[in-house]
Amino acid sequence: MTQADIGLIGLAVMGQNLVLNIADHGYKVSVYNRSPERTDAFIDESVEDRPIEGFYSLQDLVASLSRPRKVMMMVKAGAVVDSLIDSLLPLLDKGDIIIDGGNSLYSDTSRRTKALKEKDILFIGTGISGGEEGARHGPSIMPGGNVEGWETVRPIFQAISAKVDGEACCDWVGEEGAGHYIKMVHNGIEYGDMQIISEAYQLMREGLGMSAQACHEQFSKWNKGVLDSYLIEITAEILRIKDSDGEPIIDKILDAAGQKGTGKWTGISALEMGIPLNLITESVYARCLSALKEERVQASTLYPREARILPENKEAILEAIHDALYASKIISYIQGYMLMREAAKSFEWDLNYGGIALMWRGGCIIRSAFLGEIRRAYDERPELSSLLQDPFFELAIKRAEPSWRKTVIFGIESSIPTPAMSSALAFFDGYRSARVSANMIQAQRDFFGAHTYERVDAPRGQRFHTDWIHSDGKDTLASKKV
Amino acid sequence: MTQADIGLIGLAVMGQNLVLNIADHGYKVSVYNRSPERTDAFIDESVEDRPIEGFYSLQDLVASLSRPRKVMMMVKAGAVVDSLIDSLLPLLDKGDIIIDGGNSLYSDTSRRTKALKEKDILFIGTGISGGEEGARHGPSIMPGGNVEGWETVRPIFQAISAKVDGEACCDWVGEEGAGHYIKMVHNGIEYGDMQIISEAYQLMREGLGMSAQACHEQFSKWNKGVLDSYLIEITAEILRIKDSDGEPIIDKILDAAGQKGTGKWTGISALEMGIPLNLITESVYARCLSALKEERVQASTLYPREARILPENKEAILEAIHDALYASKIISYIQGYMLMREAAKSFEWDLNYGGIALMWRGGCIIRSAFLGEIRRAYDERPELSSLLQDPFFELAIKRAEPSWRKTVIFGIESSIPTPAMSSALAFFDGYRSARVSANMIQAQRDFFGAHTYERVDAPRGQRFHTDWIHSDGKDTLASKKV
Repeated sequence: MTQADIGLIGLAVMGQNLVLNIADHGYKVSVYNRSPERTDAFIDESVEDRPIEGFYSLQDLVASLSRPRKVMMMVKAGAVVDSLIDSLLPLLDKGDIIIDGGNSLYSDTSRRTKALKEKDILFIGTGISGGEEGARHGPSIMPGGNVEGWETVRPIFQAISAKVDGEACCDWVGEEGAGHYIKMVHNGIEYGDMQIISEAYQLMREGLGMSAQACHEQFSKWNKGVLDSYLIEITAEILRIKDSDGEPIIDKILDAAGQKGTGKWTGISALEMGIPLNLITESVYARCLSALKEERVQASTLYPREARILPENKEAILEAIHDALYASKIISYIQGYMLMREAAKSFEWDLNYGGIALMWRGGCIIRSAFLGEIRRAYDERPELSSLLQDPFFELAIKRAEPSWRKTVIFGIESSIPTPAMSSALAFFDGYRSARVSANMIQAQRDFFGAHTYERVDAPRGQRFHTDWIHSDGKDTLASKKV
Repeated sequence: MTQADIGLIGLAVMGQNLVLNIADHGYKVSVYNRSPERTDAFIDESVEDRPIEGFYSLQDLVASLSRPRKVMMMVKAGAVVDSLIDSLLPLLDKGDIIIDGGNSLYSDTSRRTKALKEKDILFIGTGISGGEEGARHGPSIMPGGNVEGWETVRPIFQAISAKVDGEACCDWVGEEGAGHYIKMVHNGIEYGDMQIISEAYQLMREGLGMSAQACHEQFSKWNKGVLDSYLIEITAEILRIKDSDGEPIIDKILDAAGQKGTGKWTGISALEMGIPLNLITESVYARCLSALKEERVQASTLYPREARILPENKEAILEAIHDALYASKIISYIQGYMLMREAAKSFEWDLNYGGIALMWRGGCIIRSAFLGEIRRAYDERPELSSLLQDPFFELAIKRAEPSWRKTVIFGIESSIPTPAMSSALAFFDGYRSARVSANMIQAQRDFFGAHTYERVDAPRGQRFHTDWIHSDGKDTLASKKV
């Protein structure tokens, strides 16, 4: 009997679908689940004649694998992963590979990679995106960790992943927790994309008085242009669907958004690293605010909005909304890339920026035509410090800019909140300003806390202090080198 | 010889000034510093005939104190605090009190309070704000921890703290790390106040073409009205000061803001708790963006701004900027209070909301007339879920609202970033909306991840799912209870 190519632990839906996907690509898979009933049910109901075999102990599972052994965990992130690794360790030999395909926090993955490296076990932590459908028919796969394990698992991962123009949406991301970090940023960007779409939708629906059907048609049209993406596509779909009473189902859905934490993690990481990731953070906060439904309903009676007057130039505003959505999206990805670049610096990872865009290009929730351009930009100039320096994005932003301003102003005039679109614009206006207003902040900090400041006419790093209280406002030397 | 009332460890500037302040109020103070030279220098140079005595071992310091002993640490936050506590423990008896007056992270203070309670040592972690001047002549003091120690230290703390209308800016905050938590939020609010002032300044200077002198006069005027506060006062002062060449010194200060971390902590805590604290977070991000000076200068050549045309109605816009500043400030404090309320719920602290406003009313960086109104609001209705429900703030926001919109629009039209003012407006427009656009986000999440949603026509908590892909868009039952 031939040995299996890979073992998979954890037969929840994602795990099952991955196993079927791997087996459909001709690999032999051994599976194990904590509760044997689930293993039996899976074998009975889903496996058919695929090369999949169930095992009822980790020992038997490991014994069934060809060397170097590849054991993939699809289990709940957290302590379960650590205890499973502890159980596997005595069964494995040097050079064997453990893969964590769950939603682990990147810092856990970094810790595990290092600890297992000391035992000569190759650990790979991989983000997998695309939901159940993706896992079954082609997810986006973002592996990181110990690169020595990569060549061994690469054929399987690239076989089962999504493909775009013949290329696999799976490539090596980088060291330690890099794969899970990039998956976290992916999820943050997903929050941002969803928020700007929902802002555009509300502007159309309430600001322009468009019907759900008209919005459906608009998003369908937009999906054929530069906004072509999975999330625009499903937005168009959603707006088409009717409830049993014939009304648009979108109007029946409560406006209190949930979240599972990865958006928060992305914002927290940005704050920790000092990267101004405001669009994604505003998107997380918008969900938090939406969840305060009762408070909002109460406040709406105390602070009623003025009745809206629909604008006359509807078509022009509609086009402007399109451009604002596009420009905001570009800013969000730029911020996401800034964060990844800082993470790479901070953790000393050598990240593959073009490859990351390729991995997101297909298979996952944020897949879009647009990511093809990001990939091209980084392939052409891997050292690119910001996408704003790439001619394609430069032109796109410059074209969209007037409409973007118009849209945010339209939102403000209509009392329709656009926290993501407007924060992206504020970021852009700050980013392209040689001077911002932070000189005032530095002056204040020096005034009350003697924090010192740098000067525009002195080399960076030289610090100055003013004795603010005893300066008399005349032509005295108010700035002293310290 | 009489025993001392309190011992203080750590004679950096803050510690020294606190000691002098305590002694000036008639209390006898024992002091200790790791390096004895500093103790000697302090005694020689600053003590004069005050009741202050230096000690050269912790043992002698503790032995000099009356019971229950009160030992206050003014040392660097982090591991130093833990090791100092370990050194003190063998020297103390049950019922003695250890006070941490440094900038400790609240979670550390919570941990220490619990651990010391088990040993019957009363631990108090207190935020102290007001900088060196405040420490010397009257800081804002925010103590939390083990309330059993409060009555013992209260006389000293309330004697040395700032006073407003005869009331001490020091009151018991709450359990465990509540004092340090509130100090952290204070610092976050300080970030926000500084950011909105700097936005107003830039709008005046660049948007309206006002001179530094004209801005100085404006801020001085504003400091006599509803914006009356320390930060507006020093802003006016800063704008008056000239450099040695007679030019305004503000123009010589580099626009790259630093930070010490408490703003970040506040944003991270808000993300962890799910509270939409967007104004403070945008203020932290604005500092991060300002620090990218080189990138900004580069981007400014690629994305030059159009030449600004100064508006004709300068006076009206100036008034609008005032109102925008005021409204944004109100929103920032509302968000800060939302965060504290959630922290109280999450950590099971019984926070004293009116008392917090009183503590911030004097002595600290964010002191202002405005905080008197917040105090009044919470004293009148301690159960107030949001300051927006208080008639004073309701009226203030309603009066300011049109000007606030006008100001943010003016910023957008002038390409002057106002991330804090505009995010506050977006928050307000969301908060006072009975319906926001999160129904679209819930629909998307249900589409790609079967996350389910609630309905507007069903009780909260009932979850529904739509089979989006197989819905045919006709009048079918698209929403299924799950």
